[in-house]
Amino acid sequence: MAVTQAPASINKSEGAVTLQVADRIARVTLSHPGRLNAITVDMWRQLATVFRQVAAQPQVRCVVVRGEGGNFAAGADIREFPHYRNNKANVVAYHTEILAPALQAVAQCPHPVIAVIQGVCVGGGLEIASQCDLRIAARSARFGVPINRLGFPMAPDEMRGLLALAGPAVTLELLLEGRVFNADEAFQKGLLTRVVDDDALEEHASALARRLARGAPLAAHINKETVRRLMASSAPLDAAEIDHCFRYAESRDHQEGVRAFLAGQAPEFTGE
Amino acid sequence: MAVTQAPASINKSEGAVTLQVADRIARVTLSHPGRLNAITVDMWRQLATVFRQVAAQPQVRCVVVRGEGGNFAAGADIREFPHYRNNKANVVAYHTEILAPALQAVAQCPHPVIAVIQGVCVGGGLEIASQCDLRIAARSARFGVPINRLGFPMAPDEMRGLLALAGPAVTLELLLEGRVFNADEAFQKGLLTRVVDDDALEEHASALARRLARGAPLAAHINKETVRRLMASSAPLDAAEIDHCFRYAESRDHQEGVRAFLAGQAPEFTGE
Amino acid sequence: MAVTQAPASINKSEGAVTLQVADRIARVTLSHPGRLNAITVDMWRQLATVFRQVAAQPQVRCVVVRGEGGNFAAGADIREFPHYRNNKANVVAYHTEILAPALQAVAQCPHPVIAVIQGVCVGGGLEIASQCDLRIAARSARFGVPINRLGFPMAPDEMRGLLALAGPAVTLELLLEGRVFNADEAFQKGLLTRVVDDDALEEHASALARRLARGAPLAAHINKETVRRLMASSAPLDAAEIDHCFRYAESRDHQEGVRAFLAGQAPEFTGE
Repeated sequence: MAVTQAPASINKSEGAVTLQVADRIARVTLSHPGRLNAITVDMWRQLATVFRQVAAQPQVRCVVVRGEGGNFAAGADIREFPHYRNNKANVVAYHTEILAPALQAVAQCPHPVIAVIQGVCVGGGLEIASQCDLRIAARSARFGVPINRLGFPMAPDEMRGLLALAGPAVTLELLLEGRVFNADEAFQKGLLTRVVDDDALEEHASALARRLARGAPLAAHINKETVRRLMASSAPLDAAEIDHCFRYAESRDHQEGVRAFLAGQAPEFTGE
Repeated sequence: MAVTQAPASINKSEGAVTLQVADRIARVTLSHPGRLNAITVDMWRQLATVFRQVAAQPQVRCVVVRGEGGNFAAGADIREFPHYRNNKANVVAYHTEILAPALQAVAQCPHPVIAVIQGVCVGGGLEIASQCDLRIAARSARFGVPINRLGFPMAPDEMRGLLALAGPAVTLELLLEGRVFNADEAFQKGLLTRVVDDDALEEHASALARRLARGAPLAAHINKETVRRLMASSAPLDAAEIDHCFRYAESRDHQEGVRAFLAGQAPEFTGE
Repeated sequence: MAVTQAPASINKSEGAVTLQVADRIARVTLSHPGRLNAITVDMWRQLATVFRQVAAQPQVRCVVVRGEGGNFAAGADIREFPHYRNNKANVVAYHTEILAPALQAVAQCPHPVIAVIQGVCVGGGLEIASQCDLRIAARSARFGVPINRLGFPMAPDEMRGLLALAGPAVTLELLLEGRVFNADEAFQKGLLTRVVDDDALEEHASALARRLARGAPLAAHINKETVRRLMASSAPLDAAEIDHCFRYAESRDHQEGVRAFLAGQAPEFTGE
């Protein structure tokens, strides 16, 4: 592209992705005040870093991703495009070296990941949400990929999550039509796990996170791995894969779960 | 696991899977009285045997799977776990040599298979239902995979059916959240073909079975084979596969179907 | 098959598929008056030809497929079967050399394709609609694959579109049960993008076509290519594929889209 001058307001250091861990729940927050959490290059990089950090913390049992100030995220920050996407090599690098690794870090998080969505969840915001395991949204939230007026397609590594979540017809509908729609329609399209009234979002999201955090962590990790494996290939698992899938068999938590069930008690999982 | 003593109540011979064939319809019944048809090792083995028997009976036109006494099945019988799943080798064997072959026998049944569901349909019960071709449920039926409190994940071969039916997002929601939900929600998640009022289940299920039984059997077999082939691989069919797909072309039933249509008559298929 | 005489009324030249291009929108019409647009061999061939012509017209931004006279299409014209499908070699040729290339021509159209559906949309009609990108239907339209009474299965290349659109469970339900159902049910099964009241169909379809036609054409082409590529294989894209995916990067339309967005203006795409 021949755009030679970035808008004066651009500031590469704007926006942040923060991480807080408490009570075994990790909270990842997309924050870009005044910009509907539009995701800057720095934020994409921080998102990858934060998810790699969380992956390495065995005490974490659930990750909650949300946006600050009433919106999830308005997508990639287009004000940066004239700077970061100003020729083909840069466009390729932006998508394959900045966005793709961030989305992959979310997808490969071993812990269960919940997207808690209010306000705007479009473009890159929806791409992030699509890589989470569960998506709970306030009824007033809004969704879409209004990219058809920007003159460019969705990059392959960004499309994978949307395609796995909602299938080819919904993916093409979103991309070709470029419409923004409400949470009930997003739910109907398979983009959401659950829609709740706006004033019930906090309570539902907290209860969901606590519920997921009570599950046996190794079982959750293996469930996520197995879904990824089976989605990637219909080939039978080889011996090493089977061995890996059943590595929980002699774990303390497995024993505790069966014991507690047979005793009519609530299990206590320690991650061992 | 270090559980060394099985509960006193365990009896390996409990429960049965029975088969009755009449009027070209095979009826497979999961039966474990007083235990919500919880599926024992013997029952898994009988399920495999029964479906292999049915597969070899060309006069069968439709298979109906249901549970006895108002429930479909409460899942694998956990009271057997301390006996059959007491170390890693046994856990692997339980899932890959007992459950997987039973589910595969259902999946590979050449005849159309209907699950008729009332009451509880969870865990292994839902795994069986997922391998059927159509699932009709009473509105009061209940569904889920409440496995996250048992400390173990769903085994890969058990997950395949659920994943093919409902996709990765619903699969992970069920496994990570471990919630039990009603038939309307199961329908919305893509787990069911149809939900009917409780008192209409028998009539709807019978009409559905009779309708499927009237179809041309070879066409049904090939439709099921083709779906499995296309789901397993996106590669083009080779010459032998194409030949196999079109083996109906000079059959008596194919001729009869076209003839009857053009004559404005109801066809009579003989399976020839 | 041993059917040796075609019905007297057969006329191989019956029916036509026509193409009109105006205002960058291509209109493809299935027309077989008095026969609910039942699709003859000639029409399948014309459908392939028309879509290959449209693919080669860079000024086209959107293709609208519909049937003439209040119906989409009643499926392949069965009156031709005794002539064209009278032995195995002919049956194979009919499906692999006549129908499959026509459906593939629709699937591979680079431009966005909308099916506008009223009346009957069954069998081959639904196969065509399944290969379009978006499907908008009048509420009174009717859908299904009532093939189980015809004594033959759906051919593999015809099943692919239905399977990609609605998944294995819906595909088998349609084929095994052979029921015809209404637009609301078709929507619930994932077969439709949108259902509107009958008297609103024209307005909605026109607005949708104009909206798609305003999008950047190269972006739409690449979105469609990427969906096809990712559906065909989960392998990572190689360098040549990545290069091809990002070939838009220095296009005039990409620059215009970003420029217009940052300027708060509506973009004007030229296809360059």
